[in-house]
Amino acid sequence: MISAGELASFFHELADVAGRIALPHFRSSVDFERKEDLTPVTIADRAIEVELRRLISSRFPDHGILGEEMGSTLGDRYTWYLDPIDGTKSFISGMPLFGTLVALADEREGVVVAGMIDMPALAERWYGTPRGATFNGKPAKVSRTVKLEDAQIYTSSPDFFTPQDWARYDVLSKKAMFRRFGGDCYQYGLLASGHCDLVVETSLKSFDFMALIPVIEGAGGIIRDWDGRPLTPDSDGRVIAAANESLLKQALAVLKQ
Amino acid sequence: MISAGELASFFHELADVAGRIALPHFRSSVDFERKEDLTPVTIADRAIEVELRRLISSRFPDHGILGEEMGSTLGDRYTWYLDPIDGTKSFISGMPLFGTLVALADEREGVVVAGMIDMPALAERWYGTPRGATFNGKPAKVSRTVKLEDAQIYTSSPDFFTPQDWARYDVLSKKAMFRRFGGDCYQYGLLASGHCDLVVETSLKSFDFMALIPVIEGAGGIIRDWDGRPLTPDSDGRVIAAANESLLKQALAVLKQ
Repeated sequence: MISAGELASFFHELADVAGRIALPHFRSSVDFERKEDLTPVTIADRAIEVELRRLISSRFPDHGILGEEMGSTLGDRYTWYLDPIDGTKSFISGMPLFGTLVALADEREGVVVAGMIDMPALAERWYGTPRGATFNGKPAKVSRTVKLEDAQIYTSSPDFFTPQDWARYDVLSKKAMFRRFGGDCYQYGLLASGHCDLVVETSLKSFDFMALIPVIEGAGGIIRDWDGRPLTPDSDGRVIAAANESLLKQALAVLKQ
Repeated sequence: MISAGELASFFHELADVAGRIALPHFRSSVDFERKEDLTPVTIADRAIEVELRRLISSRFPDHGILGEEMGSTLGDRYTWYLDPIDGTKSFISGMPLFGTLVALADEREGVVVAGMIDMPALAERWYGTPRGATFNGKPAKVSRTVKLEDAQIYTSSPDFFTPQDWARYDVLSKKAMFRRFGGDCYQYGLLASGHCDLVVETSLKSFDFMALIPVIEGAGGIIRDWDGRPLTPDSDGRVIAAANESLLKQALAVLKQ
């Protein structure tokens, strides 16, 4: 592999490229025919993935790539996980809370080497490795909230839960200081920077959550599945991120009931 | 009164002042004791209202002022409606979707003369009068979506509805193209700029919705209560904003069922 600094530079290059492709399509055509196949978000999504795949393959020809739009390309020990535009509804409706997610995993060691949450419309970027996380180049650090009743909890939408999972989330989130909806990948950035304390979701795919792991854990937080197990590409998509082990334990205890 | 241009300038002055007070408190102290009375948002909320009241009273000593934090000051024919920080949970949790709402109403004519939605953390501002609306100084125009099934519908949170009202909203929003949560006042700006098509909420106060009226209607949209009546300061807080009369009618028909 390359040095940590070179890897970080390459991630920032990928994010810059993705943002340059995404932004001209954002809020571009409020009158497009919304029922056609090729909406602005689809066009941007695909164009970003094509370009990121090209850059990655040319720099790391032996690496695998798994993307939201174009499936998986087998590789050797390392795999890239790409979600070109996370927060599709945000993108379509002019809400700047969409982001590009990129992760690089060492499949042999079972470690996500680096991950990035980039919010091009907000010019906000989180980059993380197991050794630390940054927000726009400065260290990112989770909050020190340790009690569930003081925690600010986020999820994207009740619509992403099964009724059974929603019932569990409902009980948990009502024990928190408050709950707020509508965040997509941005919620995890807010957690990494200490602004919220818990994020709980379901139905995430590997390309949605792999990038979050080093951002959250590099910032001092913890991210698991609903049974408290570390996330792997095969996890069931139920994700909980917490500012610390104490909050995680309290939240998992409620989710289990 | 003063000229339209002078009034617009004064609104922009108020927004600039509010933003300068709000932003240093935003994301300022992630480790503040969240259970104390004076959270950063409370401090900012009050400081903004004090300053806006001072500016308004000194320019228009005869006008009334109704603010979220400090109640109402009686005046003559004109009343200002102030919500210094709409989207308190957003502000507290580092989410840039909080805004300052300012409206000036001519109570004798029953008309909102001008209104503003200012999002200081996003540097986005909508200003409207019955004659037109602008987004960051350029004309704002609603979408041309006319069918409910093509509409993108927003509301802030299921938690702001009574169970009965939620049941009505649930049916309505499931007939739309999609529903998204988590917007506060920003949703109405997105509608004025043609990015979403319907916003439906309950529990709004006069200082929450008076500023929205000239922004939505100046952009060509329509805003009513759930019975289709124009909003007045005494409305019950159930609000529906639509890109046009056709969408409004379809939505109201569903809400009435």
